[in-house]
Amino acid sequence: MKNNAIGVFDSGLGGLTAVSKLHELLPEENIIYFGDTARLPYGTRSRQTIVRYAKSDLAFLVSKGVKAVLVACGTVSSNAINELQASTDIPIVGVVEASADRACEVAMSGNGKVLLIGTSATVGSKKYEEYINSKYRGIEIISKACPMFVPLVENKLRCGYSIKRMIAAEYLLEIAAQKPDAVILGCTHYILLADVLKELFYRSVLIDSGEEAAKRMKKTLETDGLISPTEGKTEYYVSDGSEEFLGKASVFMQDDIKSVELIDIENYN
Amino acid sequence: MKNNAIGVFDSGLGGLTAVSKLHELLPEENIIYFGDTARLPYGTRSRQTIVRYAKSDLAFLVSKGVKAVLVACGTVSSNAINELQASTDIPIVGVVEASADRACEVAMSGNGKVLLIGTSATVGSKKYEEYINSKYRGIEIISKACPMFVPLVENKLRCGYSIKRMIAAEYLLEIAAQKPDAVILGCTHYILLADVLKELFYRSVLIDSGEEAAKRMKKTLETDGLISPTEGKTEYYVSDGSEEFLGKASVFMQDDIKSVELIDIENYN
Repeated sequence: MKNNAIGVFDSGLGGLTAVSKLHELLPEENIIYFGDTARLPYGTRSRQTIVRYAKSDLAFLVSKGVKAVLVACGTVSSNAINELQASTDIPIVGVVEASADRACEVAMSGNGKVLLIGTSATVGSKKYEEYINSKYRGIEIISKACPMFVPLVENKLRCGYSIKRMIAAEYLLEIAAQKPDAVILGCTHYILLADVLKELFYRSVLIDSGEEAAKRMKKTLETDGLISPTEGKTEYYVSDGSEEFLGKASVFMQDDIKSVELIDIENYN
Repeated sequence: MKNNAIGVFDSGLGGLTAVSKLHELLPEENIIYFGDTARLPYGTRSRQTIVRYAKSDLAFLVSKGVKAVLVACGTVSSNAINELQASTDIPIVGVVEASADRACEVAMSGNGKVLLIGTSATVGSKKYEEYINSKYRGIEIISKACPMFVPLVENKLRCGYSIKRMIAAEYLLEIAAQKPDAVILGCTHYILLADVLKELFYRSVLIDSGEEAAKRMKKTLETDGLISPTEGKTEYYVSDGSEEFLGKASVFMQDDIKSVELIDIENYN
């Protein structure tokens, strides 16, 4: 079992930012990545549908014999993590607890203010509030859905910096005046907007939820005795547009991805 | 048969703009609308996946006994219309031929220039070029994918006019200088950006592909002897987010929609 790969999934390509971090932290572990490109985006769907899609994504990775799963999707981590954990014995690590812990650590040595930004489904789930309020005292958490951020990253315009800045300001300018100590980028796509977000939140620490989840995965594997350096090989699977995946992947990670396999995700339940 | 409803489907809510037009043109016909909100958007997917999704959308409407189907989705009309027409005996009307005919009519009394704007999959299909070149002489057709337009309409920002104008200019400012006689809005969402598009293309006629398809549907029913005034009732179905549908539908049509039914589209093949 411990020689098996780590599974990682996301609704699309945003989760590749977490794979990058895993490559840094655990360069000799094998990884199997799945991006559900036939059904993305998840962040605007109902909780019921997010749970159904997430279960089939997990079923695919389990069919590949993975030893643990990193849910590199903020929307699934906020809306379906309990259902996923209840359905299997292998460790399932999402982005919520890892990034909330890091944000609270920062906020506790500041003014106690955390801002969560994410998809509509992530913000609507109230999962961050629930976790932080149950574990920390004196932390004020505010949240804001930024539904245009995923399409903005996925369809980067030719010379889009001013457009990115304008959309980010539209969602976040007022909230930035509240000077949060930490801003949780609750969607793994958002780190690709770090330039404009740093401009808006120049006083705040930006928390990359994919990176925090990757660190948490390393800890989990160590605790469970599941670390096992093997070939350091990563396999990529998507449910649609494999050629487009190869074209776009470099936006999300530096690694040169040479091949990707197309699967029919509706066969996994 | 002729007493049965007209079926209309789209990947999501854009097709409601075509239903509006059908209500104007054929107020006494019954209509069954399906929006595939669990799998939208279609415009960034591969042709293979678009065909598969479109076939199940059609299968759902056929299971409801519709007498004809209006494909109120530019992406499906450009990528899967032949497959849909081959799979059933009822008339299937898409947006391509109807809106291309109207655009060429305009262009022939002008400078012979037509611009198509649509999703990446619509522009990539080259279906408009194929149809226009086979039927008309001396028409120059140019095309431009505008992948941010659908998310822009679906997630309208609080005071987004300047953002809409900036994104539209990014895609279309250079091409507007070519002064097309007619601009085909090849996606049924785009009519909701008519304000900024009219500003950019103040010399051109904007062709609403949903409206042209509705007119074509009326003609087809007349020709086939399928017109049959009944109750003028419309039923709405979606594959996800029925409450959100009720909240958003008013963006796309004036009618007050009181109920919508949720179906599992993966059960239809």
